[in-house]
Amino acid sequence: MHRVYAPDATGVPLRVAGGEAHHLIDVLRLRPGAAVIVFDGAGREWQATIAAVNRRDVDLDAFEPRVSVPEPPVAITLAMGLLKGDRMSDVVRDATMLGVAAVVPVISTHVVVAERVWRALEPDRWTRVAVASAKQSGRSVVPRIWPVARLDDVLTATPPDAARLVAVEPHHPLASAPVARPPGGRATVFVGPEGGWSDAEVAALIESGARAVTLGPRTLRAEVAPVVVLTALWSAWGWT
Amino acid sequence: MHRVYAPDATGVPLRVAGGEAHHLIDVLRLRPGAAVIVFDGAGREWQATIAAVNRRDVDLDAFEPRVSVPEPPVAITLAMGLLKGDRMSDVVRDATMLGVAAVVPVISTHVVVAERVWRALEPDRWTRVAVASAKQSGRSVVPRIWPVARLDDVLTATPPDAARLVAVEPHHPLASAPVARPPGGRATVFVGPEGGWSDAEVAALIESGARAVTLGPRTLRAEVAPVVVLTALWSAWGWT
Repeated sequence: MHRVYAPDATGVPLRVAGGEAHHLIDVLRLRPGAAVIVFDGAGREWQATIAAVNRRDVDLDAFEPRVSVPEPPVAITLAMGLLKGDRMSDVVRDATMLGVAAVVPVISTHVVVAERVWRALEPDRWTRVAVASAKQSGRSVVPRIWPVARLDDVLTATPPDAARLVAVEPHHPLASAPVARPPGGRATVFVGPEGGWSDAEVAALIESGARAVTLGPRTLRAEVAPVVVLTALWSAWGWT
Repeated sequence: MHRVYAPDATGVPLRVAGGEAHHLIDVLRLRPGAAVIVFDGAGREWQATIAAVNRRDVDLDAFEPRVSVPEPPVAITLAMGLLKGDRMSDVVRDATMLGVAAVVPVISTHVVVAERVWRALEPDRWTRVAVASAKQSGRSVVPRIWPVARLDDVLTATPPDAARLVAVEPHHPLASAPVARPPGGRATVFVGPEGGWSDAEVAALIESGARAVTLGPRTLRAEVAPVVVLTALWSAWGWT
């Protein structure tokens, strides 16, 4: 059944406009009486019925609460070294499916995206990817996408009660086994860009309290690394 | 250091021709005396030195054995529903980095690639991807890529001592927790194409002795599913 993203939904009749309405009217060509699933991106969803199809918007009513797919036991913020072009969208899409609470694109030493390019990047571009991914995967939460930020600023902004993990190269001397589930229920996971973290960055992360974890003995592509680290963390922390 | 794939290498002086030589001569512009790593794709590698750069080939000598990155504890064959276009190459590339021993592209009910297209596909196209991925990730084994085959034929051909696992949709009634490391050290993991496995295919796989495993509560993109299932298996079976 088609999933409609409506961040303002509260379970009462609702008018949907914009891109969501366009999709219902012009792509799916749904008619009054058709059933859809509405989700608010914050964990709630409903079955609803199309009451009226107007020129540019759609009225929905008959909201019935649905049980959402369970969220994972830890709210993970993925602090990801900014990748070039579509690769960052791939990361956002897959991280959404793999249950992250937020993504922050990070500028670090080995990021290859030019400053004039990343200064102009709007997080909305990735929020749209996250919404599409939540629809496709049946998740009722849309992760928050933070503006692109420098690593130093991310370290300052991360909530102090969140556990910190940094993914490091295979055989890194500081690497430890997967850590226990953080008691505070929050974690920030730092994954480097194509060229990885610099030694100084790893040192600063460790200094800030981060635990270093490896992704196994092989070098992984940068856009696959978050999939692997998130899956390994859910294997260790439980999410089934 | 540049990695040279030489399936005929035995640790004695060697002449390399073809694409590998072209890369050394025309792209990297290496000169006599330069050091390279040679790997045979079957788990052995050496440090070697360029002895002579000829017009179309390169002579290597001074072979010194190197310790390869350890292979995982289970030889996994990934039996992957054939995906469209470059997505299958993505799967081969990532599965190589994640330590599979072999990949067999599988034709199943929901495969969307037309028969005239897949009949013409040569496994060599994916072997080249696997070689490039082994070079990039530092692996000294190149997985064997089997010809495209129908699911029934794969089930018949799989060695009887290999454990079988099939990845199924979230909340599938037959899904079990991750299985113990197979005592025979071999496993075949079946991951469906974009549309997943049909009910009849899951039934046939279970009938053949396969255990059903889920990939967590969310629907994943078909090309990400093998990354997730392999990572979850290594988390359970150990490979660090």
